[in-house]
Amino acid sequence: MVISKNMEALVAGSSTIRKLFEEGLQLAAEVGAENVYDFSLGNPAAPVPAKVTQAIKDILAENPDSYVHGYMKNAGFDEVRSNVANSLNKKFDMGYGPEDIVMTVGAAGAMNCVFRALLGYEDEVIAFAPYFGEYRSYVANYGGILKVVPAKLDDFDLNVDALDELINEKTKCVIVNNPNNPSGKVYPASTLQKLAELLEKAEKRVGHPIYVIADEPYRELVYDGDEVPYIPSIIKNSIYMYSFSKTLSLPGERIGYMALSKRMDYYEEMIGAMVVANRCLGYINAPSLFQLVVSRCLDVDVDLEFYDKNRKLLYSKLTELGFEVVKPQGAFYLLVKSPYENEEEFVKAAKKNHIILVSTKTFGCPGYVRIAYCVDYKMIERSLPAFEQLAKDCGL
Amino acid sequence: MVISKNMEALVAGSSTIRKLFEEGLQLAAEVGAENVYDFSLGNPAAPVPAKVTQAIKDILAENPDSYVHGYMKNAGFDEVRSNVANSLNKKFDMGYGPEDIVMTVGAAGAMNCVFRALLGYEDEVIAFAPYFGEYRSYVANYGGILKVVPAKLDDFDLNVDALDELINEKTKCVIVNNPNNPSGKVYPASTLQKLAELLEKAEKRVGHPIYVIADEPYRELVYDGDEVPYIPSIIKNSIYMYSFSKTLSLPGERIGYMALSKRMDYYEEMIGAMVVANRCLGYINAPSLFQLVVSRCLDVDVDLEFYDKNRKLLYSKLTELGFEVVKPQGAFYLLVKSPYENEEEFVKAAKKNHIILVSTKTFGCPGYVRIAYCVDYKMIERSLPAFEQLAKDCGL
Repeated sequence: MVISKNMEALVAGSSTIRKLFEEGLQLAAEVGAENVYDFSLGNPAAPVPAKVTQAIKDILAENPDSYVHGYMKNAGFDEVRSNVANSLNKKFDMGYGPEDIVMTVGAAGAMNCVFRALLGYEDEVIAFAPYFGEYRSYVANYGGILKVVPAKLDDFDLNVDALDELINEKTKCVIVNNPNNPSGKVYPASTLQKLAELLEKAEKRVGHPIYVIADEPYRELVYDGDEVPYIPSIIKNSIYMYSFSKTLSLPGERIGYMALSKRMDYYEEMIGAMVVANRCLGYINAPSLFQLVVSRCLDVDVDLEFYDKNRKLLYSKLTELGFEVVKPQGAFYLLVKSPYENEEEFVKAAKKNHIILVSTKTFGCPGYVRIAYCVDYKMIERSLPAFEQLAKDCGL
Repeated sequence: MVISKNMEALVAGSSTIRKLFEEGLQLAAEVGAENVYDFSLGNPAAPVPAKVTQAIKDILAENPDSYVHGYMKNAGFDEVRSNVANSLNKKFDMGYGPEDIVMTVGAAGAMNCVFRALLGYEDEVIAFAPYFGEYRSYVANYGGILKVVPAKLDDFDLNVDALDELINEKTKCVIVNNPNNPSGKVYPASTLQKLAELLEKAEKRVGHPIYVIADEPYRELVYDGDEVPYIPSIIKNSIYMYSFSKTLSLPGERIGYMALSKRMDYYEEMIGAMVVANRCLGYINAPSLFQLVVSRCLDVDVDLEFYDKNRKLLYSKLTELGFEVVKPQGAFYLLVKSPYENEEEFVKAAKKNHIILVSTKTFGCPGYVRIAYCVDYKMIERSLPAFEQLAKDCGL
């Protein structure tokens, strides 16, 4: 074994997901791709907004190549950071300046910068279950440890009451993913206010800031006229991170940013460290052309209807069939409670009906499966008889 | 201090370089940008080949957006990896398949994947001075230690004789950057053969592979009809990494790849770990549009003349003025020996004449300055009177 010990577990864990993906491909080869209902991945099917493609063409036509494709500051183009700051200020009145924004290789890149900057060996980060499983890898990259607050299964809100006992001198960050992947829950302002109060006390107790990482790639994907509270306006020590992957359907391009407010403790140190981390992790800078592209598309309206009709169809149909479904308020994921005690049985039963689902075990919340409904509406329509059969197979 | 101890030193080191950059900007504001001769950065001034811009347009016109901007396998598009493998095979007869290629966020991204996969806490990596200073950060990201083989000042070849005593049970990798930044040296096949033999013996002694990282972003930038030997055809346990930043003038787009040969020890484990590292470091995948772009530009001829005339002019003029110059064979950097014992004095004297140079202290080889001649020829012409004055100021 030449791989580092720290890496071994990640490789082992990864092969489980890869297996699922490859089994899906194999199934498609056997029964035809149109007869496989793959709800496993968060790859957005909504069309890329026309403004994005136009922006690419315009940027190439209007600017010298050396500007579009060249190096800029590690934090990104000044004019892009300025546009991002202004767009956030318009919505949330935060008083950001361009110097508070770091353009990053997606939100994943932003989160790795924070962990690189803050985590010493065996320092701790806390996530609320259910949580995006990759957080565990990101923390492990720098020798950190992820601790998990158990899910609040009655309503999937943040389990703030169970947080305090996990906080100690090693705690550096708490991650809040709003709207949540995989539950689709939108955490309300009242809960975040409670979190703010708890953390303020905890910070005094442990003697250092505990930064809340506000991971919000799904911010605009929220239904029924609901709104996602802006965490940095509620919690002083929070780092906002955003990705354009989901709302502009650009997951392959790896473009996002983080925003740090001057109100936070150790602001100067923090923003300086983020820029250095962005460079020294080998990102160097967020991809240059797409920095310029998103800068022109900050206020593009998301086609909410694309996902909302999927959400409504699946929720009503699955409920009707007797499944217990957590009604999603945002993002494009939906949790179904497993009719079997071990949800792996449910994943297998679904697969027999050519439905590919993901167990929530890797999300720190066993007993459920996740349906990613960021797919074509027609695929959902085609899948309904298979879900009917699945309900029968499960004895519903 | 909330930043991790490991990060503190990196932030402190970074501010030195940032200071230089900012001083240059300030100088430009004072005396006019056309009167400042900034040779500090490796930002290539050669035009982006027309084929690149055409490829962007064609790819957008010919493919659905969901393909161009969507998720693909973490290792990259299969067809891109296949094209890269074929292009390498045509040149070096290595028998690569697409499964041996991982598309990465530049060569910096590739190197971080290797260190993430291989380094346990306090494991060691060895670089030959002079070396690109960022290697130190990349190793430190994962708790590793960079050890440095002193430079061979008579000819700047790899100091293979001094390598063996630095190797021990903790040694995981040796970095070879060919052509070298900052010396412009091209390491010949005979030296690499000697390195191969030494490492083979050392591997037996320490009981595990020692992988050579062949960092070759400047491979095509080689002058006087010289050729750069292909390290993986000489050294079995080597990982090839390439960036398109320099040869296609795309440094801002962050696109490169690594290639692993099936001949290496633990091939299966290694390639699997690289793909997982690419994902778990938050890169997820190399930027999608630019994967497709470089795939169509693998055999674009580099405009060597653009840099060669800079090289010739600077080398002849500086030599004529009495400076001791290391004649570069490749890349677009040139070392000048400091006429002062402390090269910081030389940097200061140059700055008085509005010439911005970088001390080689951060390259592990004090006593010299680096000139990055990847600039416009006209700027070099304009700078010559300033170099004349500098020579006088130095008493040459």
